[in-house]
Amino acid sequence: MNIKDYVQQEQAPINAAMSALVEELPPLARPVARHVFEAGGKRLRPVLTLMCGRALGCEKEALYRLGCSIEILHAATLLHDDIMDNALLRRGKPAAHTCFDQTRVILSGDLMLAKALSVVAEFDDVRLTASLSGAVMKTAEGQMEEMASLRDTSLPYEGYLSTITGKTAWLLRTSCALGAIYAGGSEADIAACATFGLELGIAFQLVDDALDVAPAQVTGKPSGGDILEGKITPPLLLYMDSLAGEERERFQAAFAAGAVSRDLADAVCAAIMERGFADQTRAMAREHTAKAAKALAGLPEGREKTLLAEMAAYIVTREK
Amino acid sequence: MNIKDYVQQEQAPINAAMSALVEELPPLARPVARHVFEAGGKRLRPVLTLMCGRALGCEKEALYRLGCSIEILHAATLLHDDIMDNALLRRGKPAAHTCFDQTRVILSGDLMLAKALSVVAEFDDVRLTASLSGAVMKTAEGQMEEMASLRDTSLPYEGYLSTITGKTAWLLRTSCALGAIYAGGSEADIAACATFGLELGIAFQLVDDALDVAPAQVTGKPSGGDILEGKITPPLLLYMDSLAGEERERFQAAFAAGAVSRDLADAVCAAIMERGFADQTRAMAREHTAKAAKALAGLPEGREKTLLAEMAAYIVTREK
Repeated sequence: MNIKDYVQQEQAPINAAMSALVEELPPLARPVARHVFEAGGKRLRPVLTLMCGRALGCEKEALYRLGCSIEILHAATLLHDDIMDNALLRRGKPAAHTCFDQTRVILSGDLMLAKALSVVAEFDDVRLTASLSGAVMKTAEGQMEEMASLRDTSLPYEGYLSTITGKTAWLLRTSCALGAIYAGGSEADIAACATFGLELGIAFQLVDDALDVAPAQVTGKPSGGDILEGKITPPLLLYMDSLAGEERERFQAAFAAGAVSRDLADAVCAAIMERGFADQTRAMAREHTAKAAKALAGLPEGREKTLLAEMAAYIVTREK
Repeated sequence: MNIKDYVQQEQAPINAAMSALVEELPPLARPVARHVFEAGGKRLRPVLTLMCGRALGCEKEALYRLGCSIEILHAATLLHDDIMDNALLRRGKPAAHTCFDQTRVILSGDLMLAKALSVVAEFDDVRLTASLSGAVMKTAEGQMEEMASLRDTSLPYEGYLSTITGKTAWLLRTSCALGAIYAGGSEADIAACATFGLELGIAFQLVDDALDVAPAQVTGKPSGGDILEGKITPPLLLYMDSLAGEERERFQAAFAAGAVSRDLADAVCAAIMERGFADQTRAMAREHTAKAAKALAGLPEGREKTLLAEMAAYIVTREK
């Protein structure tokens, strides 16, 4: 079985576990939660929990519920995220706060966040609860850092890396760690799975940032969204580095002022593609998936170990 | 020592524990958290944790940190609450989202919520973590119910009771339960403390609702806020019951339409006071503090048991 089939095969049981969780929410929160889940997604986080748990010999059904605690937490952050960004769409569908009033969406997010922590508390292992509440903090901290560095052209690559480690990678790290902890893995196994998830998450975000400048014909999404929102990403950092004195000043002034037009964004994306900065960003992602793959070395040989390595390889090649 | 002195004496050590917690938050969240804490409050929740823990023989310093997990959770709900209500003031000071941008306030709330859960996870007792995540859910559920029943003149008293049990009383219940659990109390002791907190919380909210219709000269706050916001409270339920056919229909139509003027609200408050409905609400509160006091019966005799009973008695007499 390859990783695509594996992920595909797990969709139905994961979605069943998600639906069961949603039914446990208070009635007023359920439609909001359903709205997020029905918008789709590949359930990458629960899949990682399953894979890491199974890689360490655990075949228990409860892995689904454990993995879904992360998915419901992720959904909660998406709800709050959309309100903050004032986004109209999420995965091509209307954002929740355009369908339900804002109060209900904020409270549903709080509820789902608490539900995630209460599901994990059922497992009666303080390492699981501490991991999950730590992940909520890391994620929110990353989002805050991103917000604070919007339109800041002096943000170094290290600042970018710290931001995405929080906002994206930590939750993937936690998905892997939960599976390993629940499976009864050794400290070394847990650390290996956590590192795998962390590096995978960084690579995932780097590819996302590369895809943001790719032509809409390839990705199916308009390009340059990050530039228009004032987000500093590696393709943009490379682009700014490539500009000469005055041209650079002019662009940075427009970017810092939030005055980048649609046309300018298109031109910048085209230049980034042409100069190979999107490819270069993917190459950076490959360095992280290499670290992820290396982290797997000590895990027991078996199907899931092979598939985890395949997943790391797949993530850097995705085109949408 | 009486209860007022006891609460007063605990302010400094509680605030020190709060400050330590705030310093553990990510830098971007700290000013937002400080803003909430510096607005004041009597730290009722940590005081309850201390008292219940001590009533069961625990004198450990860690009770402060445990109690502060609830205070930080409470602060998180206030932050989200103010955004949802679009409130300009909180305890007479500018609400956080008027000083910081909304994104930062929502994320700080999420962070503080997660911090509360992560502090409790340190204590390595799954009953504590499960209580706290359950409390987040109950509180959000109560807030949602309140929102869903705004301007709904058909809300029965039972619906009101369910709403305030969630939005107010459950967190006080949890404050007491955490102290009892940490102190190593028996199942019966924990249940007794939980019931005490729950009934105290219901009484607390009933008194709050009675105070909302009291003259500003007494409370220092403009009266009728709940009526203007469309909240159904016992004084209002009693008032509507007291109206004759057509007068009642007219008022309910205005209330349901959110068309109650400042003048009408003043007139309604005056009528409620005159007809004794605020006193009647306080009498209802007294029924709940009686239940709270009764719940204490099985606890060991001692200073804290006496003071808990005093607190219940004090809460129904407060004038602001």
